[in-house]
Amino acid sequence: MNLVPFQEFSRIRMRVGRVTDVEEHPAADKLFILKVDVGDRVIQSVAGLKPYMSKDALKGKLVAMVTNLEPAMLRGVRSEGMLLAAQEGERVVLLVPESDLSPGAEIR
Amino acid sequence: MNLVPFQEFSRIRMRVGRVTDVEEHPAADKLFILKVDVGDRVIQSVAGLKPYMSKDALKGKLVAMVTNLEPAMLRGVRSEGMLLAAQEGERVVLLVPESDLSPGAEIR
Repeated sequence: MNLVPFQEFSRIRMRVGRVTDVEEHPAADKLFILKVDVGDRVIQSVAGLKPYMSKDALKGKLVAMVTNLEPAMLRGVRSEGMLLAAQEGERVVLLVPESDLSPGAEIR
Repeated sequence: MNLVPFQEFSRIRMRVGRVTDVEEHPAADKLFILKVDVGDRVIQSVAGLKPYMSKDALKGKLVAMVTNLEPAMLRGVRSEGMLLAAQEGERVVLLVPESDLSPGAEIR
């Protein structure tokens, strides 16, 4: 296991976000295109969640977002952040705040 | 905002863990000493959660743990991992999986 210095970890910014919109990726079966309000802006995130949950289950949800990843193009669509989710076998489960708070709340 | 390449982010290992024990830190008012089962081992984590939640609220809970940080000594007690929590003003709220899964499930 490669250990990571705390200083390196602390470069990763994470925030609570609220999913405001979910669309299907036009060119990929498993990908959703999400809009996520992270307090001071809305991030677009391309996420492989379609096999595991419905659009309606995602819409409006509070999620945990990595907010300062270098943007990437996923099958031609820009992704500016990543949702945190846990995987066990064929299940994928979102990480969520245990109780409600506002989009933008910092995670550490 | 400093952008982080995905490759750097991917060095961070995170897993679902179950809190199996909570003690008060003998030398710090705000710190708990947690034992967290992360599947293949139990991690000790020193966390500044005491102002925000009770021992009983933590015990047994599924949490999100960073599992490969370099160990640090916090007021003389070894901390080998970090819980993820969101902060808003005076509130601190844990990140939890939206539904139950086993300790050790990988987060990404």
